[in-house]
Amino acid sequence: MNKYILPEGFLASGIYCGVKKKRKDLSLLYSRKPCKAAALFTRNVVKAAPVIVAQDMLKKTRDIRGVVINSGNANCMTGREGIKDAREIIAYTAKLLKVPKDSILGSSTGIIGERMPVRAILGGLPQLVAGLSGDGLLDAVDGIMTTDGFRKISSRSFTVGEKTVRITGIAKGAGMVDPSMATMLCYILTDADITGRALKKALCSSTDRSFNSITVDGDMSTNDTVMLLANGEAGNETINEKSKNFRVFQEQLDAVTVELAKMVVRDGEGASKFIEVNVIGAKTAKDAKKVADAVAGSLLVKCAVLGGDPNWGRMASSAGSSGVNFDPDKLEIILDGVTFFREGKAVKHIDRRSTPVFKDPDVNITINLNMGTSEAKVYSCDISKKYITLNSYYTT
Amino acid sequence: MNKYILPEGFLASGIYCGVKKKRKDLSLLYSRKPCKAAALFTRNVVKAAPVIVAQDMLKKTRDIRGVVINSGNANCMTGREGIKDAREIIAYTAKLLKVPKDSILGSSTGIIGERMPVRAILGGLPQLVAGLSGDGLLDAVDGIMTTDGFRKISSRSFTVGEKTVRITGIAKGAGMVDPSMATMLCYILTDADITGRALKKALCSSTDRSFNSITVDGDMSTNDTVMLLANGEAGNETINEKSKNFRVFQEQLDAVTVELAKMVVRDGEGASKFIEVNVIGAKTAKDAKKVADAVAGSLLVKCAVLGGDPNWGRMASSAGSSGVNFDPDKLEIILDGVTFFREGKAVKHIDRRSTPVFKDPDVNITINLNMGTSEAKVYSCDISKKYITLNSYYTT
Repeated sequence: MNKYILPEGFLASGIYCGVKKKRKDLSLLYSRKPCKAAALFTRNVVKAAPVIVAQDMLKKTRDIRGVVINSGNANCMTGREGIKDAREIIAYTAKLLKVPKDSILGSSTGIIGERMPVRAILGGLPQLVAGLSGDGLLDAVDGIMTTDGFRKISSRSFTVGEKTVRITGIAKGAGMVDPSMATMLCYILTDADITGRALKKALCSSTDRSFNSITVDGDMSTNDTVMLLANGEAGNETINEKSKNFRVFQEQLDAVTVELAKMVVRDGEGASKFIEVNVIGAKTAKDAKKVADAVAGSLLVKCAVLGGDPNWGRMASSAGSSGVNFDPDKLEIILDGVTFFREGKAVKHIDRRSTPVFKDPDVNITINLNMGTSEAKVYSCDISKKYITLNSYYTT
Repeated sequence: MNKYILPEGFLASGIYCGVKKKRKDLSLLYSRKPCKAAALFTRNVVKAAPVIVAQDMLKKTRDIRGVVINSGNANCMTGREGIKDAREIIAYTAKLLKVPKDSILGSSTGIIGERMPVRAILGGLPQLVAGLSGDGLLDAVDGIMTTDGFRKISSRSFTVGEKTVRITGIAKGAGMVDPSMATMLCYILTDADITGRALKKALCSSTDRSFNSITVDGDMSTNDTVMLLANGEAGNETINEKSKNFRVFQEQLDAVTVELAKMVVRDGEGASKFIEVNVIGAKTAKDAKKVADAVAGSLLVKCAVLGGDPNWGRMASSAGSSGVNFDPDKLEIILDGVTFFREGKAVKHIDRRSTPVFKDPDVNITINLNMGTSEAKVYSCDISKKYITLNSYYTT
C-alpha cells in the first residue's frame, strides 16, 4: 500500500509563497469533479476568519471542488479585514481553477491577531494551481505543517462491490506553538460515491473516536478543522446511511482518522511517551469518556508517566474529580498490565523501584469503574521540560 | 498586629511523631469551650477517610472542641481500615483531652493508598496534648506543612460592639507533591460569638472568593478541607445572618481567606510569578468565573507568563473555550495595564521585545467581555520546569 496515493480524481500541490520563512506555507487539494463535503470545526467561541467563512459556505453549497490552506498565519482575531482576506484568497483560487467561487474552501493556521499577508498568498496562487498533480500530496502536507516533527498521512484502499475505493487523510499537529496556538487541521479525501448525509454521519462518528479522543494540552484552538471530501470517482454503488457498505466505509474512515489522531499525539510538543487511557466498566459511554478525559488531561498524571512513577493515587484522584459518580471501593487501576488498586485496597504500593512501569514509549492506564459495561479510550502524551521551553520562549 | 496570636480560648501544638522523616507531622488545635463549626470538603468522588468521618460527625454534633491533623499520610484509598484508623486517632485525642469523642475532628495529608502509621500517631498524642499552649500556633502550622516553602498564617482583629474579635487562619499549600497529591488544608479559628448558620454562610461565601478562586494545577485533591471554628469567647453580641455585624465579620473573614489563598498560589510548586486574572464586563458572575478559571488554568497562558510573552491570542482562545458565549469582536485584553486587543483588532502585536510584559513577580491579565457588568477574579501562578521535575521524579 502506497501511503502517498491520492484517491481517484484528486490532485494536490504545496509551495512556499512567503508567509513563513523559507518553508512551504501554501497548499491546495483539488478534485476534478464536484465533491460532497462534510466538515467539523472548533467549538471555541473565538473562531478564525476562514472557519467562519467555511461554515457559512457549507450551508449554501453542496458542490465543493477543493480547499486552499496556508500555514504561518491563522487569520484569527483579525476582524472584518480577516473575513475579507479569507474570501479574497478563495475567490482568486476558484478563478484560477475556473470553478465556481463558492466551491473552494479555505483554512489557515499560525499566528493569531496579525493581518494575513494576502499579497504573498495571491502572488503564490498561480504557481500553486499550476503545480497540481497526482503526486503532490507530500508537498501539500509540507505546506500545512507548523512545528510538526513528521508528516501525518494515512491511507486505506478497500473494495465496495467490485470497485476499489480509497480514503487518504493528511493532518497537522495539535501541540501548541509559539507565538500562537497551533491548530489541528485534517483533510480527508475519498473517491467513494456516498450521499452527503452518510458522509456527515461517518465523519461525526469517526471524529468522536479519533480527534475528539486525544488530548495534548487541553486547549482548544481557534482554527481546528476536520474536512472530508468525496468525489464519487470510484464508481461504486452509492453508499447511504442504511446500505451495508456504510459500515465498511465507516470502519476504513475510522482507521484513517484514528491513525492520524495517534500521530498527532505522538508528535505532541516535547512528548516522549504515548499514553492510552482505557476506561472500562462505566455506567454510560459518556461517563467513560469523561473519566478518560480527566485522567488523560491531568498534568499530574502526565508528570507521573514522564517520571516512570506508578502513582495510581493521581489517576484515582483525577478520575474522582471528573464529575462522574462512582464507588471508589470498586475502582481498579491497572498500569501497563499491573494491577495496583483493587477492592478498596492497594495491591502494590506506589514505588517505582519495586514495580517499574511506564518504561516503553507506549504506555497504558486502565481504569475499571466496575459500575457497568461502557468503555472509552483517550490518547494522550506525557509532558516534558521541552514543552515548557517551547511554549514560554520564542522570538518573533 | 501579631500574626501569631490565637483568638481567645484557643490553644495549639505541633510535634514530630514519626509519620514523616524528622519533621513535625502532627498538630492539634483546641478550644477550651465548645465551638460552632462550619466546614467545606473536597468534591472529589474519591474522598480520604478523615474527610468521610468528619462529614459524618458534623451532621451529628454541634459542639466541636478541636481538630487533630497529621501530615505525611493522606489516609486515602485505604478502605475500611482507613476509616477505623481515622476514628481511633480522634477517639484517643478526645480521651486525652477529656472531651466527648464526637467533639474532635481529624484531617490528614500526604501519601495516598498507604495504611496510616496509627501507632506512631497514637504514641505521639499524649505529648501533643500536653504541649497545647497559647503560643503553639507556629508549631501547629509546621505540623501540617508538606512541600510548602513558607508558613501560611493570616490574622485579623476587629471590634464588634465594644468587644475585640479575632480571626486567625492557617493553611497548607495546594501544589501537588510526590508521591501523591498534596492537599489544600485550612483551619480558621475565631473567638466571635456567632450562630452556626451565620458561620456556615460566611464560610461558603468566603471560600468562593478565596480557595475556590485559585488554581495551581487544576487537580482537586482527595483531602481538601476548609474548617472554621467559633468559640464565642470574645463575648460580643451574637452575630446572626441578619445582624449588621455579619457584614463586618464576613469582610474580616474574607481578608483572612483571600490572604491565605494568595499565599497558597505564591507557594505553588516551582512557581515564579503570581497571576491575577480579572474578568470584567460579563453577563453573569458565573460567566465571569468560568472565563477567569479557563484563562487562569490554561497551561499555555501559564507558559506565556513564564516567558514574558504577551501572547494575548492564547488568553482569547482559552476564554473562547470556557463554554461561555461572548462576542470576540467586543473582547478587550489588557496585560499588565497595556491594551493589546480592542474592537476586533490587535492594538499591539504579540512581540515581547517591543512590548515587554509580565516582568514583575505579580502580573495581571484583564479580560473585558463587554457583555455586561459582572466580574470575577481568579489567582494563579506560572508553571516552570521545576514543577515538572518535582512532579515526575521522586524517591520513596
